[in-house]
Amino acid sequence: MFKKILIANRGEIALRVIRTCKEMGIKTVAVYSKADAESLHVRFADEAVCIGPAPSSESYLKMANIIAAAEITNADAIHPGYGFLSENAKFSKLCEEHEIKFIGATAEMIDKMGDKASAKATMIAAGVPCIPGSDGILDTYEETEALAVEMGFPVMLKATAGGGGKGMRAVWKKEDLKDAWDSARMEAKAAFGNDGMYMEKLIEEPRHIEIQVVGDSYGKACHLSERDCSVQRRHQKLTEETPSPFMTDELRTSMGEAAVKAAEFIKYEGAGTVEFLVDKHRNFYFMEMNTRIQVEHPITEEVVDYDLIREQILVAAGVPISGKNYTPQLHSIECRINAEDPHNGFRPAPGKITSYHAPGGHGVRVDTHVYAGYMIPPNYDSMISKLIVTAQTREEAINKMKRALDEYVIEGVKTTIPFHRQLMDHPDYVAGNYTTKFMEDFEMK
Amino acid sequence: MFKKILIANRGEIALRVIRTCKEMGIKTVAVYSKADAESLHVRFADEAVCIGPAPSSESYLKMANIIAAAEITNADAIHPGYGFLSENAKFSKLCEEHEIKFIGATAEMIDKMGDKASAKATMIAAGVPCIPGSDGILDTYEETEALAVEMGFPVMLKATAGGGGKGMRAVWKKEDLKDAWDSARMEAKAAFGNDGMYMEKLIEEPRHIEIQVVGDSYGKACHLSERDCSVQRRHQKLTEETPSPFMTDELRTSMGEAAVKAAEFIKYEGAGTVEFLVDKHRNFYFMEMNTRIQVEHPITEEVVDYDLIREQILVAAGVPISGKNYTPQLHSIECRINAEDPHNGFRPAPGKITSYHAPGGHGVRVDTHVYAGYMIPPNYDSMISKLIVTAQTREEAINKMKRALDEYVIEGVKTTIPFHRQLMDHPDYVAGNYTTKFMEDFEMK
Repeated sequence: MFKKILIANRGEIALRVIRTCKEMGIKTVAVYSKADAESLHVRFADEAVCIGPAPSSESYLKMANIIAAAEITNADAIHPGYGFLSENAKFSKLCEEHEIKFIGATAEMIDKMGDKASAKATMIAAGVPCIPGSDGILDTYEETEALAVEMGFPVMLKATAGGGGKGMRAVWKKEDLKDAWDSARMEAKAAFGNDGMYMEKLIEEPRHIEIQVVGDSYGKACHLSERDCSVQRRHQKLTEETPSPFMTDELRTSMGEAAVKAAEFIKYEGAGTVEFLVDKHRNFYFMEMNTRIQVEHPITEEVVDYDLIREQILVAAGVPISGKNYTPQLHSIECRINAEDPHNGFRPAPGKITSYHAPGGHGVRVDTHVYAGYMIPPNYDSMISKLIVTAQTREEAINKMKRALDEYVIEGVKTTIPFHRQLMDHPDYVAGNYTTKFMEDFEMK
Repeated sequence: MFKKILIANRGEIALRVIRTCKEMGIKTVAVYSKADAESLHVRFADEAVCIGPAPSSESYLKMANIIAAAEITNADAIHPGYGFLSENAKFSKLCEEHEIKFIGATAEMIDKMGDKASAKATMIAAGVPCIPGSDGILDTYEETEALAVEMGFPVMLKATAGGGGKGMRAVWKKEDLKDAWDSARMEAKAAFGNDGMYMEKLIEEPRHIEIQVVGDSYGKACHLSERDCSVQRRHQKLTEETPSPFMTDELRTSMGEAAVKAAEFIKYEGAGTVEFLVDKHRNFYFMEMNTRIQVEHPITEEVVDYDLIREQILVAAGVPISGKNYTPQLHSIECRINAEDPHNGFRPAPGKITSYHAPGGHGVRVDTHVYAGYMIPPNYDSMISKLIVTAQTREEAINKMKRALDEYVIEGVKTTIPFHRQLMDHPDYVAGNYTTKFMEDFEMK
């Protein structure tokens, strides 16, 4: 087992990793930028090394400084957390070259799954369903129609040079395809001077549902069920839950099998997430694979009593997994508390926290690095806390989240607590009736 | 279901009850003394009524004021928490007379179980094992010897006027009984002017193990397994765990059955605890029954995923229980964090909390009413927080408790955090090898 792990990250995830290391009897090294000297991850690690000034490019992304910190402190492994260098193939390789174990994917794996086209080709080879579509640009209308008929309607025509919805057409039946093709091309030509078009199957009422997987170094993988992350704003997840209110036992079995197949096909090591889009007919399509721990991992931990960071460390140390798949026994919801003003377009609101009280009690978990008096630096992601509640049923979990949000006192900065509180009362959210489009119509009161 | 519950208590337990009420959609009324105006239970309740000055006798024990507060606010039930009026038969009756539901035992039940002699007689009638002993004072040596032989050695002779160990003799074999009888009587006569003696079976290496029960208003009861509360200082519990490291499946079944038998015999309604002493041979003996929620209830909640306060409220509203008995699936430990100086005889240390950060993350629960800036009043119990950790195994739970204690920042007052941290490293505690005598030999480093 590792003797000392350096955590190449900051904030709540650095603290999260330190916690598990302590419980496993592994020493920890924190690295920090000058802006983070007062952060709890620095206080709670056994050692801490300053790796540069506030901008990430000068510190948390500065590979040489992090490798140097690991060598100075004799750390035998590096946990990258999420973001920063967690999916950086070059860094993974650099660790390997310095004989420091990178607790994450190999450079090869990151490259393979990091590039969208390569990931999709790999998943098709593995037999995992991907969003059907044209291979690149469509040359003729005849070709387009034939493909649309083959894939089945509805389809989405997209300008290859597109953006902002221009040159895009959703087409629901064959009769409408020709007009859509003509008008989309004309619009694209006018807007971008390029009328190249490609086509994808249109995902109706899409939900973002992901499957947590863990693979070991012996080619074995298992899954820990799903997380529904459909409540997103500009592709940023705001709240997540497990089980998904849209899930059925059959769908979980199929998606779980697909995710395990994907992981085993590429001999995936460690904790990873296979993200799918699920349409209203419960067809599911591979979107991408994240080769790291995710922000929303705690909800999975809560419903299956499983420490995912511990598992990452064990697998990295060569311990085989049991291979057992898990089904949620409880219901868990996470709200990401960001220092943002939800009444003002979710504008970041860094500053000093003047008063702080976290909710507690049965079924409430708070993962945070902040405290009364903490100064939120303006340099990083605005997430300051993750509030996770767990209960027997979804209804109870929503009620518990409401009371926990009501109890959560963070003064001095604006936060997204009021947004989550309103979300928990939104009839569509309460009914479990939401897609990735949900936030487009959401308005703060 | 109740529309509004008044919580006749303060501190963490008041907050604990408010939390569950909120989750159930029940309005809450806090009562508070002038010393508690800044307490979180006041802040988080829907309404709050000041019921008098700081001394408990003038506020939290002032029945008329509490009943008046309930009537003014139209509360239809009162939850008494623990301590204060929670086992006060007169108060239970008073609530009934005012048509306010007392969420606890009836006056009759409290009287029956509150008096030691009456409780023991009831339990003997129910067929629950009690500590064998003489019925009152022993008249002659011959009678004493006959009874000792019947009960089996070892036995404990005790002066009826005794105290401080005077006039007490542990006797391990018949040959030693006569000498012990004579010398104990002489000592008692000299010390108290009264040589009356009684005798009990001596409990070898006693452990305090209690069984959580829940009964409904239809005569049905179930148990939620045990809590080991043997780590006590002057009969004050310091830390508790479940399962007990001393427990076997057979013993749990027998003790669980005995506790359910006790509860059903007296038609017990609500959450209660049957406390037993268990000797080194795993014989168990009824000590007493607590007819209220207990401080240490969260460890049970964590290992069986069961909200005991919710269950109290449901049962009080006439909802029947399922009757299912529960076995712990996980391991949970609670440390009572007191504002006391463990290096100075656990002397109470009230004062202002200048800095506060609670531990968090996977498997960590904190039940507390304090925060940075909170002034701990000198008038009440010194417990300021309950730190509860839960993990797959006892070893993991101990490791988690260590890291949680290391993370827990409470500045401005002395606390028992250093004591618990040392306890978690004590070889006998780690081995699960402790009895109610454990603290007699414990020394702080």
